[in-house]
Amino acid sequence: MKATVHVTLKNGVLDPQGKAVQNALSGLNFSGIEDVRQGKFIELELSETDPEKAHAQVEDMCKKLLTNTVIENYTIEIIKE
Amino acid sequence: MKATVHVTLKNGVLDPQGKAVQNALSGLNFSGIEDVRQGKFIELELSETDPEKAHAQVEDMCKKLLTNTVIENYTIEIIKE
Repeated sequence: MKATVHVTLKNGVLDPQGKAVQNALSGLNFSGIEDVRQGKFIELELSETDPEKAHAQVEDMCKKLLTNTVIENYTIEIIKE
Repeated sequence: MKATVHVTLKNGVLDPQGKAVQNALSGLNFSGIEDVRQGKFIELELSETDPEKAHAQVEDMCKKLLTNTVIENYTIEIIKE
């Protein structure tokens, strides 16, 4: 079973990486870019076959390792095959 | 108009970051993890209001700055408000 996790910075948390991308895009003459935020996208391949159990397992992974819940949000998607 | 870009490594390209996450998860006693791939997730806020033009603009950004097309794939999504 496949699971994907999107990790994004919470609103109000400064995103220097996103700002760097925004400045670089401006330097390449792209105009009209109001904001850029950069996050992580993690794809997991699990042997678990029950979607609910897989979701619970990935949620646990997010809390323990994948995200810093103080400054980051995460969304989990389970892809049924 | 909001646009999101997913940047992922092409199949066959080694992903040391993903492997590190996989090993760390194993070290935390998570079992049944067959593969982990880590990519980037970029959110852009554009002043462009035409979805087709916005898509073309973001595609151009991907080719020029956001992705390394030799080893990375990207998917663009335009979010209509």
